[in-house]
Amino acid sequence: MYQLNLGELSLDDFMQQYWQKKPLLIKQGFKQFQDPLSADELAGLALEDDVESRLVQCTDGNWQLETGPFEDFARFGDKDWTILVQAVDHWHPPAAALIEPFRFIPNWRIDDLMVSFSTPGGGVGPHLDQYDVFIIQGEGKRHWRVGMPDPSLKSICPHPRLLQVTPFTACIDVIMEPGDILYIPPGCPHDGISIENSLNYSVGFRAPAQKDLLTGLTDYLIDNDFVGKRFSDVNRTLTPAIGAISEQDLDQVQQLLMQLVSDRAQLPLWFGQYITQAKHELDQQEPDPHYEAAEIAEYLEEGSVLGRIGGLRCSYYQATSDSDIQLFINGNRIVLPAEEYDTACLLCDSNRIDQQQCLHFIAREERLLLITDLINQGLWYFEE
Amino acid sequence: MYQLNLGELSLDDFMQQYWQKKPLLIKQGFKQFQDPLSADELAGLALEDDVESRLVQCTDGNWQLETGPFEDFARFGDKDWTILVQAVDHWHPPAAALIEPFRFIPNWRIDDLMVSFSTPGGGVGPHLDQYDVFIIQGEGKRHWRVGMPDPSLKSICPHPRLLQVTPFTACIDVIMEPGDILYIPPGCPHDGISIENSLNYSVGFRAPAQKDLLTGLTDYLIDNDFVGKRFSDVNRTLTPAIGAISEQDLDQVQQLLMQLVSDRAQLPLWFGQYITQAKHELDQQEPDPHYEAAEIAEYLEEGSVLGRIGGLRCSYYQATSDSDIQLFINGNRIVLPAEEYDTACLLCDSNRIDQQQCLHFIAREERLLLITDLINQGLWYFEE
Ligand SMILES: O=C(O)CCC(=O)C(=O)O
Ligand SMILES: O=C(O)CCC(=O)C(=O)O
Ligand SMILES: [Co+2]
Ligand SMILES: [Co+2]
Repeated sequence: MYQLNLGELSLDDFMQQYWQKKPLLIKQGFKQFQDPLSADELAGLALEDDVESRLVQCTDGNWQLETGPFEDFARFGDKDWTILVQAVDHWHPPAAALIEPFRFIPNWRIDDLMVSFSTPGGGVGPHLDQYDVFIIQGEGKRHWRVGMPDPSLKSICPHPRLLQVTPFTACIDVIMEPGDILYIPPGCPHDGISIENSLNYSVGFRAPAQKDLLTGLTDYLIDNDFVGKRFSDVNRTLTPAIGAISEQDLDQVQQLLMQLVSDRAQLPLWFGQYITQAKHELDQQEPDPHYEAAEIAEYLEEGSVLGRIGGLRCSYYQATSDSDIQLFINGNRIVLPAEEYDTACLLCDSNRIDQQQCLHFIAREERLLLITDLINQGLWYFEE
Repeated sequence: MYQLNLGELSLDDFMQQYWQKKPLLIKQGFKQFQDPLSADELAGLALEDDVESRLVQCTDGNWQLETGPFEDFARFGDKDWTILVQAVDHWHPPAAALIEPFRFIPNWRIDDLMVSFSTPGGGVGPHLDQYDVFIIQGEGKRHWRVGMPDPSLKSICPHPRLLQVTPFTACIDVIMEPGDILYIPPGCPHDGISIENSLNYSVGFRAPAQKDLLTGLTDYLIDNDFVGKRFSDVNRTLTPAIGAISEQDLDQVQQLLMQLVSDRAQLPLWFGQYITQAKHELDQQEPDPHYEAAEIAEYLEEGSVLGRIGGLRCSYYQATSDSDIQLFINGNRIVLPAEEYDTACLLCDSNRIDQQQCLHFIAREERLLLITDLINQGLWYFEE
C-alpha cells in the first residue's frame, strides 16, 4: 500500500489551500517509492488492442503523434519520445494501488491512472488540462515546470492531435525524483521533459462539462422512455403577430426545461448511473460457469478475500439516513434498504473486501445474492 | 380563401372558452364548403414515395394497418377502411389554404394538414391525441363522437401500431356534413365512423414534450460545439464518505444544468431553429439555374406574386423593438436589423406575397438579396 506523505501539510490544509487553486510540489510524497510496474510491462500494455495508448515524439522541433496498439518501439530510437498509456488501473492491480492514497476525494471525481514512459528529452510539450491531476515520479528523473492559469497564453497545435500552449512562467520548476508528486489544478500550464528514462503516473480526475451533463441527462431520459409534459397554452390570447415567438411562449418552454433539470428525485438516480459509467474498457471476466450462492458462501466463510476489478466505478446516494440507498456500480443502479449502508460502504469505499468484511456478506441472504451477482458479472473476484 | 365562421362566438370567446379546454362543434364553420381536392387526388398522393400515408381497415372487429406508398386500393373493397395522408399542405397548395383560417394561433404551434378519405364504416377507432386538432368535414357524411378527457379510459392496442381507448361518453355526437368543423383539445377521446364515402381535413397542432425540448436543446448545443463550464469543487472539504454522491455535488450539477436551460440569450435562438424544422418532406424545388438578383428585381417590379411552399415553417423573435430580428425559416436563422420588422412579417405572416408587397423587397438591396436567396432555395416561388 502506498501512503501519501504531505509533510507539514494536513489533508485539510491541502484542500483549503491547493485543491483546484494552485499547484503543489510534494517532495517525497511517497517515501522509498517502488514502481508498481516496469517500463517493459508498460510497453507490453501498449501492444494490447483493448488498451488506449499514444506515443509523442519531438525531433528537431517536429512533433509527431501515433496511437496504439503498437508493435515495437525500436524504430523510435532512444530519445525524445514518450509513450502514454490510459487507464492502466484497469489492467494492472499493483499500479491501480497508486490511486488509493488519493481517495480523500470522492470516487466519482476520480478518473483513471495514466502512466507514461519517457526517454531523455521526451515529453508531450507545454500544455494545460481541464482536470486536476496528481503526477507521481517513478523511476528516473524528469524536469517538470508548472505555472498558474494565465489567460495570455495562446493555444498552439504543432500536430492536429496535440494541443499545446505558448511558453509560460513557472511557479514550480523542479527535477522530479522517484516518489515526488506534483498536484496540478485544471488550467495550469505544465511541461515535463525527461532527463533520463523515466516513468510518470498520473492520477486524473473527472469533471463533467455542462454539455456532458445535458447530453447525459438527455440520454438517460430517452433510455427510460420518459416523455414528460407537453407544451400547453390554455391561457393563450389572440395576437396579430402570428409569426412571432413570444416571450410568454419562451417562458413556458424554459419552465418545462427547468422542471426537468431541477427534479431532485430523478437527478441523483441519473447522475449516479451517468458518473459511474466506465470511459475505458474494463478487464471484466465473467466466471464460467457462474458460481452458485452456496459455493460463494462457503468460500467466504473459509476466509476468502475479494478484489474489485481495476477502474470499476462505485458510488452510492442516500437522501436521508432512513431512505433507500441507491448503489451505482458501473453505470447500473441497485436499490438497497436503508439498513444496508455498511454493505454500500464495503463495496464502494475500498477496492478490496478483506476476510473479516467478507463475513458481512454471508450474514444475510440478500447480501449473499448481491455479492454472488457481482462476482458472476466479473466485477469482484476471489483473490489468490 | 376559406373563411372561418364561428357564428355567435368571437375568436376571443373561442380562445377563452374552448381552446385547450373543451371540444366544440362548429356547424357550417366553412359555409358552402368546396373540397380543395378530390378523393382521387388524395389516393394519388398516397402512391408517392415522399408522402406519408396509412390505411386503417376494420373487418369483423379485426383491425389492420398498412403504411404507404400504396399501389392501388381495389383490394380493400368499398367499405370499412380509411386512408390518412399526412402533410397534404406540403404537396397541394389548394388544400394548404385550409390551414390559413386557423392562423389566429401562431405559426410555430401549427403542425400540418392531414387528410383522410373513408369508405362507409371506415374510421381509425376511438382514440385520443396529444395535440389540438380542427377536423373539417369535406364531401360525404361522417358520424363523429367526442368526449371530455377521462382518466378512467384505458388504452387498447388492437394492432401493434394502432392505439385506441375503451368506449367513452360523448359530449358531442353528430353527423358531420360538408363545412362542419370539430375542435378537439388534447386528450379528448374521439371517434369518426363514415356514413358514406367522405373526406376529412385535420389541421393539427404541435406541442413539444419536455423530452423533445431537452433533446432539441442538446442537439443544438452539440451542433454549435458548445462545451460550457466544467464541474468544479474548489470549496470541497474532506469527508470519510468517499463512496457517497453528496447533496452539495448534486447541487452543483443541478446548477450547471439550470444555467444551460435558463440562458435567455440562447433559448430563443435555439427554440426558433428547433420549432421551425419541418417534420415532413417539403416540396422544395431549387430553380436551375439560380436567378440573378437583377432578374428577380425585374419580375417583382413587373407585378409578380410570390408563393411560399406548403408547410414551410417561418417565425421570428425580437427581444425588444430596437433589437435585431431573429428570423427562422425551415430551421435556419437569419438576423435582420430591427427596422426590417415588416420584412419578417411579410415572410412569416402569410403564405403569399402579393404584387404590392413584392415591391417592398426591391426597395432595399439587402431585401432583394434575401428574397433572391429564398427563391433560389426553392422556398418561395413565382406564382403563375
Ligand atoms: O506524463 C506525461 O508525459 C504527461 C503527464 C501530464 O501532462 C498529465 O498527466 O496531465
Ligand atoms: O380523419 C380521421 O379518420 C381521423 C382524424 C383524427 O382522429 C384526428 O385528426 O385527430
Ligand atoms: Co497534462
Ligand atoms: Co385523432
